[in-house]
Amino acid sequence: MVPATIKARLIDIVGENQYRDSNEARLAYSYDATPNFQALPDAVLMPQTTEQIRAILRLCDESRIPIVPRGSGTNLCAGTCPTEGGIVLTFNRMNRILEIDEENLTATVQPGVITKTLIEAVEARNLFYPPDPSSMKISTIGGNINECSGGLRGLKYGVTKDYVLGLEIVLPNGDLVRTGGKSTKDVAGYDLTKLFVGSEGTLGVITEATLKLVPMPESKKTMLALFEDIDAAASTVSAIIANRIIPATLEFLDQPTCKVVEEYAKVGLPTDVNAVLLIEQDGVPEVVERDMQRIADICREGRAVSVKIAQSLAEAEALSTARRTALSALARMKPTTILEDATVPRSKIGDMVKAINDIAKKYDVMICTFGHAGDGNLHPTCPTDARDAGEMHRVEQAFEEIFLKAIELGGTITGEHGVGVMKRPYLALKVGEAGVAAMQAVKSAFDPNNIMNPGKMFAKDARKRVVING
Amino acid sequence: MVPATIKARLIDIVGENQYRDSNEARLAYSYDATPNFQALPDAVLMPQTTEQIRAILRLCDESRIPIVPRGSGTNLCAGTCPTEGGIVLTFNRMNRILEIDEENLTATVQPGVITKTLIEAVEARNLFYPPDPSSMKISTIGGNINECSGGLRGLKYGVTKDYVLGLEIVLPNGDLVRTGGKSTKDVAGYDLTKLFVGSEGTLGVITEATLKLVPMPESKKTMLALFEDIDAAASTVSAIIANRIIPATLEFLDQPTCKVVEEYAKVGLPTDVNAVLLIEQDGVPEVVERDMQRIADICREGRAVSVKIAQSLAEAEALSTARRTALSALARMKPTTILEDATVPRSKIGDMVKAINDIAKKYDVMICTFGHAGDGNLHPTCPTDARDAGEMHRVEQAFEEIFLKAIELGGTITGEHGVGVMKRPYLALKVGEAGVAAMQAVKSAFDPNNIMNPGKMFAKDARKRVVING
Repeated sequence: MVPATIKARLIDIVGENQYRDSNEARLAYSYDATPNFQALPDAVLMPQTTEQIRAILRLCDESRIPIVPRGSGTNLCAGTCPTEGGIVLTFNRMNRILEIDEENLTATVQPGVITKTLIEAVEARNLFYPPDPSSMKISTIGGNINECSGGLRGLKYGVTKDYVLGLEIVLPNGDLVRTGGKSTKDVAGYDLTKLFVGSEGTLGVITEATLKLVPMPESKKTMLALFEDIDAAASTVSAIIANRIIPATLEFLDQPTCKVVEEYAKVGLPTDVNAVLLIEQDGVPEVVERDMQRIADICREGRAVSVKIAQSLAEAEALSTARRTALSALARMKPTTILEDATVPRSKIGDMVKAINDIAKKYDVMICTFGHAGDGNLHPTCPTDARDAGEMHRVEQAFEEIFLKAIELGGTITGEHGVGVMKRPYLALKVGEAGVAAMQAVKSAFDPNNIMNPGKMFAKDARKRVVING
Repeated sequence: MVPATIKARLIDIVGENQYRDSNEARLAYSYDATPNFQALPDAVLMPQTTEQIRAILRLCDESRIPIVPRGSGTNLCAGTCPTEGGIVLTFNRMNRILEIDEENLTATVQPGVITKTLIEAVEARNLFYPPDPSSMKISTIGGNINECSGGLRGLKYGVTKDYVLGLEIVLPNGDLVRTGGKSTKDVAGYDLTKLFVGSEGTLGVITEATLKLVPMPESKKTMLALFEDIDAAASTVSAIIANRIIPATLEFLDQPTCKVVEEYAKVGLPTDVNAVLLIEQDGVPEVVERDMQRIADICREGRAVSVKIAQSLAEAEALSTARRTALSALARMKPTTILEDATVPRSKIGDMVKAINDIAKKYDVMICTFGHAGDGNLHPTCPTDARDAGEMHRVEQAFEEIFLKAIELGGTITGEHGVGVMKRPYLALKVGEAGVAAMQAVKSAFDPNNIMNPGKMFAKDARKRVVING
């Protein structure tokens, strides 16, 4: 528990109502969207200003109390599970869009802004904020920045990192640092902005962000291409890019995923083919039209058994919304859903999907695979049951083998979900022991007392995934 | 000098011919493109392999010998001037393009590849590497990465940082780290890739880079818009973007710059108007055509006195080549040319240009201004004479006031040239004392013995710019 004297000082800082340590409050913030990780925080704080956050961090740094910054907790790496107790810092009282600057094409926001709220606000001005994690209806910009969220539009538009121009950051010692600004060009010292994006709350607290916006694409078209042969679908993904076309979205769904999504969303997804590509292009109407025709031709040459362009905006929206529900749909199948994000160079997705299927067979577990094929960012997903220790052990072994395969193919252990607690045993697989040591040196440089989201990113022991903490 | 025993070990590592410490060799590497900075290194090494570099760094780290990695030395911040002696590491023996991967749209290169060589190699495959520093005929990719070079195409396409997907890095202790890879999506730990881009050789040595390529734009058009009123030109820059058009290039040249460039390049630049915008758009022909018409309309509404689209590719190339020669052209005027890169949000370039002109008048110095107006990245350039101490003092005062103004307008002290020795007294202006402290902590984390390009980025004393070292 937080010592009484410190509790009193924290209440002084944020006000009585913004300090919670009831069992209910602590329980509500003991977990995030990641299955099977749970740990009670000592208290939950809801600061309203940067100055309050500076005071909180100074106090907690002196007192060595862990701080876990948390958006909406939609991450899938147990990145906001307070595994070492301490204080969960929420941003629902810091959720204002401070400015949309139409001359410089930037938005400046507080961390608690809901992603979709920002997207809608800028689209109302004919501007576009591309990063679109599937959880965007609930996720916050602060959370997106801490995890460097990706999404469906990553292939053409990049990820959260590509849209963060500047940050206001509070360091563990209470120092306030402003990085970057509204200019794309800024080389005044090390790029702390990009270092903080994806740092999983382990280096400091982000209190404000300036984001890059782009002009809203004038039009969009959506296509479904169906394949009997998974390899043919995978080769088609590479073929589209090799033909110098970069679609906005290029999603892959295998048959089990299609079936489950269709049962849930009922949008007319096929359930009888082995692989589906969901392809979107946006831009100037003539170019979209031309690209879609060329993509259709490439799909047919690639042995698609059916290629169908959505006839209306409503039909197109229904398809991409259905794709976004994949996790929710799969989560209905079994008590526990483990969704992963092994990522490979896009030319290797055929090999990766095949390997995933072989590995699932080998360990006798069910794995449905879907994901951002254009990025090589696949989401092998296992509906399972955490209460079945035997199966869980096999699931763990299967995923370890999947990560090893992704690395072997030149990929990474996580494309967009982050390391958190889930992947920390595997970080060295990707970046090597020297890479881990370099990252730990960076961590110590910013947070010598290790109060910022401790226990995330770096393994303390050999403990692997799928373990209940608490 | 390098002690004899260490010299012998270094020769063992790289071979007799790759170790140079003649006066001629030391003199040749005692300066870079930055005027008025010079200091002799103790030796020049030309390694051929990553393993050699690991051995060199281990030895120099033990022996506390400074290492200055150097591409072609075209930087303008004295970033490769060996101000503390030690060893200059050159990469002309590590200049191979290792792979161009057309399925994943990546190029993997050694650091010594000349920028233009890479650009031409990928364009031959109908691919595009956008970063185009004006020095690209001579500059190397390794140098571009260390400085995070920008260029004329930054507005639409971003800067070097946006195209570096992965790096092979040797740390000062000799550790080898591979960051990133061919996938855009990778959140396995902190983004060391982006941290190293623009780190000015102060954290380690980059020995290989994997770069992102994009499809080659199908067509390009170039336009000159002439203005009597500098403010009108500046407002037009903002108006184009506010109309949701992002040109590939949007350059500003004031009258003195136009005059000097025209005298040098003779391409038909006007010399009798106060401001010129050089605008390029690339992409699908229909879209380029449409954008150029809309831009022309916006220029006319913005009180352009003439708007002219280049009638041939040759004419267009001549114009952008002429723009790239601005520094060379200005350098012919006086013995010393100080080219700066104060950067502001693009909506503020009118204010900035006006302030530069006022400041030039106040200190009685000549300042020509041109630059990447679309990025807010201006290059106020002062033709002067380093031998005239009185004038040099006024130049120094003028630039300090320009940096202060850029910060006041929400900009930065350097948009694309880097800090190096030149801007180190000003770094705190932009990032604050807390920001400098955070950056120094990062530096110490990677390079505790401060062997990597020491004396760059961080000020040791109050000494300002325009000082001859050595």
